[in-house]
Amino acid sequence: MSDNIKFVQGNEACVEGALYAGLDFFAGYPITPSTEIAELLSIRLPQKGGKFVQMEDEIASVCAIIGASLTGNKVMTATSGPGFSLMQEALGYAVMTEIPCVIVNVQRGGPSTGLPTSVSQGDVNQARWGTHGDHAIIALTASNHQDVFRMTVDAFNLCETYRTPVILLFDEVVGHMRERLIVPAQDEIPLVIRLRTSVKEGVDYHPYLPREDGRLPMSDFGGVHRYNVTGLFHDMWGFPSSNPDIVKGLTRHLTDKIENNCNEITRYKKYFMEDAECVLIAYGSPARSALHVAEYLRNRNEKIGLLELQTLWPFPSEMVREECAGANYIVVVELNLGQIVHAVKMAVDHPEKVFLANRIDGLFITPDDIRNIMRLIQGKGV
Amino acid sequence: MSDNIKFVQGNEACVEGALYAGLDFFAGYPITPSTEIAELLSIRLPQKGGKFVQMEDEIASVCAIIGASLTGNKVMTATSGPGFSLMQEALGYAVMTEIPCVIVNVQRGGPSTGLPTSVSQGDVNQARWGTHGDHAIIALTASNHQDVFRMTVDAFNLCETYRTPVILLFDEVVGHMRERLIVPAQDEIPLVIRLRTSVKEGVDYHPYLPREDGRLPMSDFGGVHRYNVTGLFHDMWGFPSSNPDIVKGLTRHLTDKIENNCNEITRYKKYFMEDAECVLIAYGSPARSALHVAEYLRNRNEKIGLLELQTLWPFPSEMVREECAGANYIVVVELNLGQIVHAVKMAVDHPEKVFLANRIDGLFITPDDIRNIMRLIQGKGV
Amino acid sequence: MSDNIKFVQGNEACVEGALYAGLDFFAGYPITPSTEIAELLSIRLPQKGGKFVQMEDEIASVCAIIGASLTGNKVMTATSGPGFSLMQEALGYAVMTEIPCVIVNVQRGGPSTGLPTSVSQGDVNQARWGTHGDHAIIALTASNHQDVFRMTVDAFNLCETYRTPVILLFDEVVGHMRERLIVPAQDEIPLVIRLRTSVKEGVDYHPYLPREDGRLPMSDFGGVHRYNVTGLFHDMWGFPSSNPDIVKGLTRHLTDKIENNCNEITRYKKYFMEDAECVLIAYGSPARSALHVAEYLRNRNEKIGLLELQTLWPFPSEMVREECAGANYIVVVELNLGQIVHAVKMAVDHPEKVFLANRIDGLFITPDDIRNIMRLIQGKGV
Amino acid sequence: MSDNIKFVQGNEACVEGALYAGLDFFAGYPITPSTEIAELLSIRLPQKGGKFVQMEDEIASVCAIIGASLTGNKVMTATSGPGFSLMQEALGYAVMTEIPCVIVNVQRGGPSTGLPTSVSQGDVNQARWGTHGDHAIIALTASNHQDVFRMTVDAFNLCETYRTPVILLFDEVVGHMRERLIVPAQDEIPLVIRLRTSVKEGVDYHPYLPREDGRLPMSDFGGVHRYNVTGLFHDMWGFPSSNPDIVKGLTRHLTDKIENNCNEITRYKKYFMEDAECVLIAYGSPARSALHVAEYLRNRNEKIGLLELQTLWPFPSEMVREECAGANYIVVVELNLGQIVHAVKMAVDHPEKVFLANRIDGLFITPDDIRNIMRLIQGKGV
Repeated sequence: MSDNIKFVQGNEACVEGALYAGLDFFAGYPITPSTEIAELLSIRLPQKGGKFVQMEDEIASVCAIIGASLTGNKVMTATSGPGFSLMQEALGYAVMTEIPCVIVNVQRGGPSTGLPTSVSQGDVNQARWGTHGDHAIIALTASNHQDVFRMTVDAFNLCETYRTPVILLFDEVVGHMRERLIVPAQDEIPLVIRLRTSVKEGVDYHPYLPREDGRLPMSDFGGVHRYNVTGLFHDMWGFPSSNPDIVKGLTRHLTDKIENNCNEITRYKKYFMEDAECVLIAYGSPARSALHVAEYLRNRNEKIGLLELQTLWPFPSEMVREECAGANYIVVVELNLGQIVHAVKMAVDHPEKVFLANRIDGLFITPDDIRNIMRLIQGKGV
Repeated sequence: MSDNIKFVQGNEACVEGALYAGLDFFAGYPITPSTEIAELLSIRLPQKGGKFVQMEDEIASVCAIIGASLTGNKVMTATSGPGFSLMQEALGYAVMTEIPCVIVNVQRGGPSTGLPTSVSQGDVNQARWGTHGDHAIIALTASNHQDVFRMTVDAFNLCETYRTPVILLFDEVVGHMRERLIVPAQDEIPLVIRLRTSVKEGVDYHPYLPREDGRLPMSDFGGVHRYNVTGLFHDMWGFPSSNPDIVKGLTRHLTDKIENNCNEITRYKKYFMEDAECVLIAYGSPARSALHVAEYLRNRNEKIGLLELQTLWPFPSEMVREECAGANYIVVVELNLGQIVHAVKMAVDHPEKVFLANRIDGLFITPDDIRNIMRLIQGKGV
Repeated sequence: MSDNIKFVQGNEACVEGALYAGLDFFAGYPITPSTEIAELLSIRLPQKGGKFVQMEDEIASVCAIIGASLTGNKVMTATSGPGFSLMQEALGYAVMTEIPCVIVNVQRGGPSTGLPTSVSQGDVNQARWGTHGDHAIIALTASNHQDVFRMTVDAFNLCETYRTPVILLFDEVVGHMRERLIVPAQDEIPLVIRLRTSVKEGVDYHPYLPREDGRLPMSDFGGVHRYNVTGLFHDMWGFPSSNPDIVKGLTRHLTDKIENNCNEITRYKKYFMEDAECVLIAYGSPARSALHVAEYLRNRNEKIGLLELQTLWPFPSEMVREECAGANYIVVVELNLGQIVHAVKMAVDHPEKVFLANRIDGLFITPDDIRNIMRLIQGKGV
Repeated sequence: MSDNIKFVQGNEACVEGALYAGLDFFAGYPITPSTEIAELLSIRLPQKGGKFVQMEDEIASVCAIIGASLTGNKVMTATSGPGFSLMQEALGYAVMTEIPCVIVNVQRGGPSTGLPTSVSQGDVNQARWGTHGDHAIIALTASNHQDVFRMTVDAFNLCETYRTPVILLFDEVVGHMRERLIVPAQDEIPLVIRLRTSVKEGVDYHPYLPREDGRLPMSDFGGVHRYNVTGLFHDMWGFPSSNPDIVKGLTRHLTDKIENNCNEITRYKKYFMEDAECVLIAYGSPARSALHVAEYLRNRNEKIGLLELQTLWPFPSEMVREECAGANYIVVVELNLGQIVHAVKMAVDHPEKVFLANRIDGLFITPDDIRNIMRLIQGKGV
């Protein structure tokens, strides 16, 4: 087997992606089912000259990567639901201060301690709304290891492009399942290099003064420029301000830089959508079962298609509305009580055509489960 | 002035309500704009034999009240956005273990440190989705001090009835504004006494075995019964279980006990709704401006009405749909980028008739602001 | 306990009803889950002067009751699926010769030997179409013992009124469950006495010459009149004929006497139907669960109603269409792969609003099963 | 005349088809109008080394062929309505045990003894629903002798492919009419060889453990493997089970193997359908008259087409819906009170456009009959 072909867990695919993207610094506190990410990076990251730190808890972990990013590193942490809840306050700090970082949440069953070793997708809406105050967020996911790798690289690229935390929202099945990963050649996927300021030492650097294209060049904190970073609303110097125009401007800026670039941020796959009268919408591991259903029923000449979402937030409303325009049934497949299904209902023209196929018992949703729910929706009983 | 008529801040009205409801134990860490709640209780609560503890942070605070509740006390903590984010993990523990408690969030501007002394309603969706994993939650709010008092008492009653955390989601204007409060006579508002088990000492007590009516009797932890409490999915003995039927059953139970009792939990006020063709929907301090607009335009014979929501979660979808059935315009007034407006769109038959009137600059939304936005919506320009 | 209040199995309620209706002759071959009917009648029927015969098989049994009916007796047999299949040929003979008889099928799981001790409703369409050739049939069912009693009496009345076999299509749960039965006073339910000819001995009796009202008076075979009875198409003397007008006339007569009296033959109950937006349609034991669901959801202010069918064939299409005119969802509850659901779809104006809630695994369908399927239909997931 | 060109009755065409397909064993009891099938096979079958047995009745006949099939033979029986009713119980046994066999029903007038020498199509719904319990069935028919031959060969192929009884539902006109038959060369029509297990002697053979493609390999009963065959619900070893998952699984399997392969099983012919605004749907002998009508009216430039169904069950709903999408009138031609017409109404988008053209008097329906009925449907009066 060629060196670049690996048979790995999804968590390892994420590690490979992070290393490929240039990860410099990882701080984390191990938690099932994300532990292998920390475990592998504790070996791999020092080998390439990066820093691995096991912190005392998840709050410390996310604070450490925020600091490390500000000083010029590509950073990541990884956790699961309970740790992700603990990270919410500092995650808001990274949003407000516009510090690039990648936060992986390999979802297990929740709420609370929940089901550490079982799969769920219960943190999808938390990823959107978990920290206080109006904000926007980027969250990506994937259903197979090639895509886990790719979305990890993309997460690093997007966090630099938009200066924002990016959440990788995997699930236990993807994290722990083993399958083939082909690591791309080093230049195959373009990497976004951090945009650093061209302002010279000794000249005033305005950390929150955008360039003409809206992007904010960074200066490694502790380096040649002195500037202020605060979680308070702030002006272009980074100093606190409660001036209503500045408050409104910053609120809109933090949201617009993401929502207005929804098309650029949206990653998805489509299968058999050209004439689909029944559209499955899935993401993460359930998309594997959904694809199986779509292939199976297409072989039986049913006009079924699949939209696999890889960008969950910002939610690609327009794309979903357009793709579903001709559908009679839209079946959202999730491992939760129905979270993305609400966003789908908001997006489409006929919310009454949107149904939910889900499991909430810690078990994976199988193609049979989906087909059985489709039977019920179509009035055919069990 | 009679003893029971007070001229107070909203935060003080909340304190009065908590004492009226029988608060035994408060643990908190002061944060603007909620600080007066802790401050006042540090004096008042010991006077009536209760316990006040200032903790080292918000995580400790919420954990302390959860423990105190389990041992038999009526408990509360109070905070604002950043502290509320820190509380998310333990809040999920209280959801999972079904421990009654009241958490006050007097909202300020956010995200992150944000605008400590200014008003916003940016934590509404966080209250719903802030902790990881599928769950349901109760969140109440109010726009005046009489209602702050009442909602506080109701929060204690609901947390006992449904064995769940209840969030009081006030805002800085309500918290700091002073107006009259008439404290009701002690028996005027019925109080829900904690349902304790009738199981005798020495007999097996099943902490999660519901009575016929679905309620779970409690036994003071550390008292006559020995039992297990865990944030893991658990069976009727409280012991961890990953049995899929038990996992599904508990997930549904935690949600259904709240969602299925939506009508019982819903508190709202309506003004001029009988023939309203334009419906304002507001909550918290903006409802004061909205009421002013409604009264003003009714005097000019416009068919305008106001729904003031006091229960935000579970969202009263049915009530809103029915009340808005005859409306041509539905204008949701919020001090955020639009949060409840999504729930309103999901609830009504014609989401295209729902509009948002808001401010996001830390200033209060005035009647003029709302009327100006209404002109624009109605095509009348500025 | 008063003598007329009994705590019995459904099979015993059927026996009580048959005795009340004046059963004279029972021939049968025991088969689970109908055995108690034969067992009890072997004791009770001789006590009142009737005849009980255990035959060598089900073909002999149905032939015996046909002969006994023709000679002037009220007759019944009882069986389950496999025996019912064996009876199909002779059942057609009774249809063609217009001989009143009651055939009880206490349904178990099928096809073939199937699941002798478990419940199903798999023989509903067989009851309609099991014998060869165009024909109509009457089939009644019930969900509780009071109704089992009543439907049994009605079966005897209808078989005499329309000179046709009547099928009592119970199910294992109804047959074996025990609950209270209040046996009515002897004159409380009117009994239909066999219509006997007024033609005197020595005068020509035309066995298939209808009276003005369409009814055919009978003459006890072997009595004072000599006449022919044949399974061939026949004229008014009972003699074979292949005259196309006679063939067409008899075919239409056998169908019209039942289909045109559909309203008179239809028995059903309705619950909460006045403003129902969701209509459950059920029959037999699942109607018990459906009623539970309807009561439960009505208490939660959902506009749900229940149509409990007691006459399955002729299918009451008009009644169902009228009752369902205002429904958004029609959920047919059955213990099979969907049989009556087809008749419902044919009856209503919007077949796309008809869904199936069913079980096919030998277990009873619970209120929870129905509510869970309703959740899926309504797009709410599990 | 070449040896392979014959001038025969339809019953003889059926015999030729069965011999071509490799019939090894026939057991039957003669009944009009199917008798010629038994008569001819009593001569022809022994000549090629097969076995012909006249049994004491139809129950014995169907049981004999089931046993013979299980021991490794291609088998058939032939009967008419009354015999077909008697066969219903054992037919269900063949369904449940998945034993390949072909049952011919040459329909005469019914119900009961009916009209032995006249034509009807009264057993169509009985073929679908005649045995008790949920099940699926395959039933084929034909309108001319070339197709009778072909459908007979297909019946043998389908019964082996799907391990299920296949019903050949001919009618008296087709059975007794004489016309040309060209017997195909021996390799012209592919024959499905029974799929036998590759499990060696001494190794466990699981009679109901499907291969990856869903098919169940057979082992000649009484041969090298010992295994159980029962009409009870059973597991992969063939042993009885009332485990709900096994019961549900087997029920769905028995149905799905047929319903899900509807497209593969569907045989039909279409004439002038490309732009048909009036669609005739017919099967069996009436399709001859319908074709005459279609040709006649096409010559008069009326946009009429004909769908001749050869597979009646599983009903080809999708094909019918698609073919009839552009029709203003759909006229189903049947020799009964309307049986396939219900399936057509269920299939199409506009059931109100479906009409019935039929006779029920034992006479054949002529082109004139159909055209007269069409005039009435189109409002042109008689």
